This record gives sequence, C-alpha cells and structure tokens, in this order.
Amino acid sequence: MSRADRFLKACRREPVDTIPVWLMRQAGRYMPVYRELRAKYGILEIIKAPDLAMEVTLQPINAFDLDAAIIFADILPPLEGMGLDLEFVKGDGPVLHNPIRRLADIEALQTPPAEEALSYTIQAVRQTRQALNGVVPLIGFSAAPFTLASYAIEGGSSRNYERTKALMYDEPDGWRKLMEKFTIVITDYLRGQAAAGAQALQIFDSWVGALSPYDYQEKVLPYVQRIIANVRESAPGVPIIYFGTGTSGWLPLFAEAGSDVVGVDWRIDIAAARETLGDDVAIQGNMDPLVLLSSVPQIKKQASRILDSVNGGRGYIFNLGHGVIKSTPEAHVAALVDFVHSHGKR
Amino acid sequence: MSRADRFLKACRREPVDTIPVWLMRQAGRYMPVYRELRAKYGILEIIKAPDLAMEVTLQPINAFDLDAAIIFADILPPLEGMGLDLEFVKGDGPVLHNPIRRLADIEALQTPPAEEALSYTIQAVRQTRQALNGVVPLIGFSAAPFTLASYAIEGGSSRNYERTKALMYDEPDGWRKLMEKFTIVITDYLRGQAAAGAQALQIFDSWVGALSPYDYQEKVLPYVQRIIANVRESAPGVPIIYFGTGTSGWLPLFAEAGSDVVGVDWRIDIAAARETLGDDVAIQGNMDPLVLLSSVPQIKKQASRILDSVNGGRGYIFNLGHGVIKSTPEAHVAALVDFVHSHGKR
Repeated sequence: MSRADRFLKACRREPVDTIPVWLMRQAGRYMPVYRELRAKYGILEIIKAPDLAMEVTLQPINAFDLDAAIIFADILPPLEGMGLDLEFVKGDGPVLHNPIRRLADIEALQTPPAEEALSYTIQAVRQTRQALNGVVPLIGFSAAPFTLASYAIEGGSSRNYERTKALMYDEPDGWRKLMEKFTIVITDYLRGQAAAGAQALQIFDSWVGALSPYDYQEKVLPYVQRIIANVRESAPGVPIIYFGTGTSGWLPLFAEAGSDVVGVDWRIDIAAARETLGDDVAIQGNMDPLVLLSSVPQIKKQASRILDSVNGGRGYIFNLGHGVIKSTPEAHVAALVDFVHSHGKR
Repeated sequence: MSRADRFLKACRREPVDTIPVWLMRQAGRYMPVYRELRAKYGILEIIKAPDLAMEVTLQPINAFDLDAAIIFADILPPLEGMGLDLEFVKGDGPVLHNPIRRLADIEALQTPPAEEALSYTIQAVRQTRQALNGVVPLIGFSAAPFTLASYAIEGGSSRNYERTKALMYDEPDGWRKLMEKFTIVITDYLRGQAAAGAQALQIFDSWVGALSPYDYQEKVLPYVQRIIANVRESAPGVPIIYFGTGTSGWLPLFAEAGSDVVGVDWRIDIAAARETLGDDVAIQGNMDPLVLLSSVPQIKKQASRILDSVNGGRGYIFNLGHGVIKSTPEAHVAALVDFVHSHGKR
C-alpha cells in the first residue's frame, strides 16, 4: 500500500498500512515556490489558468509525502458566475463589491452550469488528475451553502454574521431561494469535478459553526443533505468529506448531512468525536494549525496524542483542524507528515 | 419569590417560580441612556468613577425586569495594574501598547492587591450593592487567565491567537509564570468584589474555546481550578459562574474547573449540555445574541425552544450565549425578558 490508495481506503473505512495525511491549504503562501508564483500572478489569475492551478496543486505533493492532492482553487469563484463581483484585496482578503442585501438581489442571482462558469477549475482537475498519474488521489471541493451565503451577504469575512443571520431570520422566503440556488450551483460544481476526475470531494462549511443547532437544522441542513445525496447519485464511489469548524457542540447533527467523512476542527477530543459519531463514518482532523508554528518536538507530541486516540485508525485521516497558516515553516510540515506515517503504522 | 432571589436560587439549583434571566453586556451601547453618558465620558472614565459605573449598572435594571445586575466594568483593567498600557481605541476596540513578548516582560509584571489597583470597581460594587437595596442580586466578575493572556500577548483582540499559542507551546516556564501571576490577580480581584458585596461572581473565559481540549487541560485548567477553589474558600455561598464560548466540544472538561454554574454559548443544544454535564451543576445560556436583532416572534420562537428543553428549569438561568450586540433594539430586550418569565413559569 502507498500514497496511491491509503487516503481513499481510509475514507471508505477499509484497513490501511498507516494513517493517511493531507493538510487543508497545503498549497499556499507558506511555501516559497508558491510565493514566487504569486509575485507574478494574482490569486484569481492562478485559479483561472489551469496550468498554473495544476502547478500549485502539485507543489506540496512534490515537496512532502502527503497522501492526497487537493485542486488549487478558492471557495468563492462560484459567486462570480452567479453575478457577484469578487476581488481579493491585498491584506483585506476577499471582497464582494455587490453583496446581497434584498430579495431582488437573490432573485437576480444566476445559476450557470459549472462547465461554463467554472470551466477553468474543472479543466484544472482534468489536467491535474492526468499529471498525478495515480501517485496520489485528487480531491475536488466546494464551499457549502451557509459559508457561501455568509460571504455573499456580508460582502467579505465577518465576525458576527449579523446581516447573514438577519436575512436568515427575517426573510425566510429569500433565504430559501438563496439556499436553493446555492444547492444547484454547488451540486453541479462538485459533479463536474468528479466527472473530470476528482476522486474525493470536500464540502467546506467553514463558518457554519456560527449557528446554533436549532438554526442549522432548520435553515441549512436540508440543503447540504440534498447536495450530498445528489452528488453521490451521479458520482457513486467518490467519497464526500463534509468539513466545519466550531461545530463540535452539535456534531451528530452535522453528521446527519450524510457525508462519508466528517471533518472536525481541533476543539474536540478525537476519541470523543468517534464516540459521538459511531463507527459508520470516517473522521478527518484534528490538530490545531497553530501547533505547526511551534517546534518539531511539540508537533510530534500533539500528533501522537491524536494518533494514540484514534483506536487503531480505521476510518481516520490525519489533517489539521483548519488550513495551514501562512507563517508555518515548510520543515515542520515535512516533519509532521513523516511522523504521522511512522507513528500511525499498524 | 421575585427578582430578589430567583437568580441566586437557580445558581444553587433550588426551586424557582420562573426562569431567571439576565444578559451579558446588558448595560452598554444598545441603550440610548448609556450612549448619552458615553458622549461625555470614555469607557475607562466610567469604569474608574464608581458613581458612573453604578449609574450604568443600574440602567438596564431600571429599564427591564432582569433578575440580576452585573457591575459595569471591563475584563481588561486588571492588566493596567500589572503594568500594561491599556487604551480603548474608537472603532478598534482595546489596545495594549506594551504587550508581553518575552520572558522578561512576564517577569516584570506586577501583582498589586485589587484593593489598590482596582479599588474603583471594588468601590463601585460596594455602592451598587447598597443602591440596589436587595431588589436584584449583584454579580461581580473577572476575565479568566487564558482570555487575559490572549489580550496581554496579542496586544488586542485576535483571530488565530498566534502569539499566545506560540508562547504557550514554546515558553512553558514563561507561560506558567504568566498563568500564576494572573491566578493571583484574578483571585484577589474576585475575593475583593465578594467582600464588597457581590452576591455571585462570573469568570469570563471568552476566548478559551480557541484551544484544543488537550491544551486546555494541560495549560489552563489547573489555574482556573485554583482560582475557583480559592475564591470559594474565602467567599463561601457566593455562586461562581464560569463562562466560555466555543467550548461545547469539550464541555465536561470545562466543567472540571469546578464552578457552580457553567455558562454556554449558543452552539449547543441546551438539553445536550444538561445531558453532558449531569445534574450537579447549574447551566446558564444559550440564545444566539443575533436573535435579538430579529423580531419579537422570532425571539419568542427561539426562547421557547430553549425554555422547553431545560426539563423544568431546575438549575437553569436564561442568558444569551455571549454579550448583547450594539444594534439590539431595547424593545426586543424587554420582550425577551418578559417572555422568559411568563413562558418559564412552573
């Protein structure tokens, strides 16, 4: 067994020779080779040029012994095709210049096919899958409806999600229409990536942990369930990972979305997560990304605490609890990946 | 039974006639009377003038049928007495101009008695307790060690707590010394408030939910346990509330701090919190503060969902999951408080 199949086997809760590991945002600013490229191109330029997106996707695969590649893209480009004006502003992060404010804004949102609006990422998936040549599997991804809504409504990142929750509480018809449009776009985007060769799909619901379980269940969960069921139908055998942060207080409800793998952040003991979720689902996570900024002994200490708590490791994929932080040293990533493989051996 | 004793009885898990309710940040910018005062005085000026702090503390008590007052103060002034230069910068929130960066900074921190360094708040407690004249009990409070450390090290609020966690991981001796100094200062401050008449004490660990349960247990919990045990010894019968956000994934560990009441945010079902914590502790929370920005029907719907899940309400105190948001309408606070009392009746 090798990098070629360890990750997919773990997604399916099949036996593995050692714990597979990949890292959210494993391609990106912490790598000098990426920063070199970014000196020449904007982030959207890279995402929209399949050759460049492929190059960045492969950078961490060439540098580290990771068990999966994830296509280099961003969670927000789907909003462009829907009619929102997206810009990455240096230092401020993503900005939507015409955020959704009224029912009419929601009604005006388009739902173009991914093959048109997001053809560059689908093409990047196709090329990268070929280039990888089976060395490691390729993960495709999309944001989930709530996380996408939060950017579309707030116009960028947010602390309290004040406008998002206001729309959710006070405009139930508008909220439903918005969720339905996102459901169409996300489903089509994930299907398109699977058809182009993505061997697993991750749905990022990074900010849904801002909700109470009551609101999640009523206002969000049905749409995620529909996305997962529909994507699974058209891409059987492609494992679906559903990831959130801050959701540990209502993890069983989060798992009701029906994914094959539940992604957890670092704010839960991994053994407690398994106890809560039972054995019928794989789990991915959960080291605090800040640990990677510390030292190799600290990294090993924290990784072994996790690895020693996964009860043999069936159906477990090592990852961070959120993306790699920009100031992470590359040597720490290398040390972590190697340690997971050696310490995680059966 | 009345406002005079409902809250304290609930803290002690004794029977009550209806569910008591108070709100974190119930005095503050959402109230026009407060904004009028703030047009004349800075926030630290109000906190440091016992007459003004008392006036602000009483504003929501006069306006709404709340079951407890909480002394108007802030979690950061203890850092001033320790040697840090605190300023509230308009629009940016709190700034510490000389944050802790090195071991020498930690060694230089002072631990003056609260009666000296925080005499204004202790005096405000004394006066306000008298002025309240038994109408409602008065809560004193302090930040917890981790939350205080995060401001002291980051120099203000933070997204990832990068420097705080770096110090925690990489300078174990420095971290221990810092936690010990905070333990001394916080213990003395809470004791001082109890001696001056505070009838309950809340420890705000607002940002400790940024930690994994592993790190919390090793690096933070022992100090909170020591604070609670020591304060209880010198102020027996004064209930201690320990509040955090983002801690729902490791709530049993949070409860090991030993408080009489556990404060939870909105990211957990209140029935699940009770199930997890058992019956030997009171629980406070857990409505999303953003609900208060919505409409009275939405507020009633969400409050009744919570009230219907607290299994009769023994040992339960209604509150938000975090502080009242600035844009909250006063009428919504009034409607919530009255609804909790009517719907929460035994």
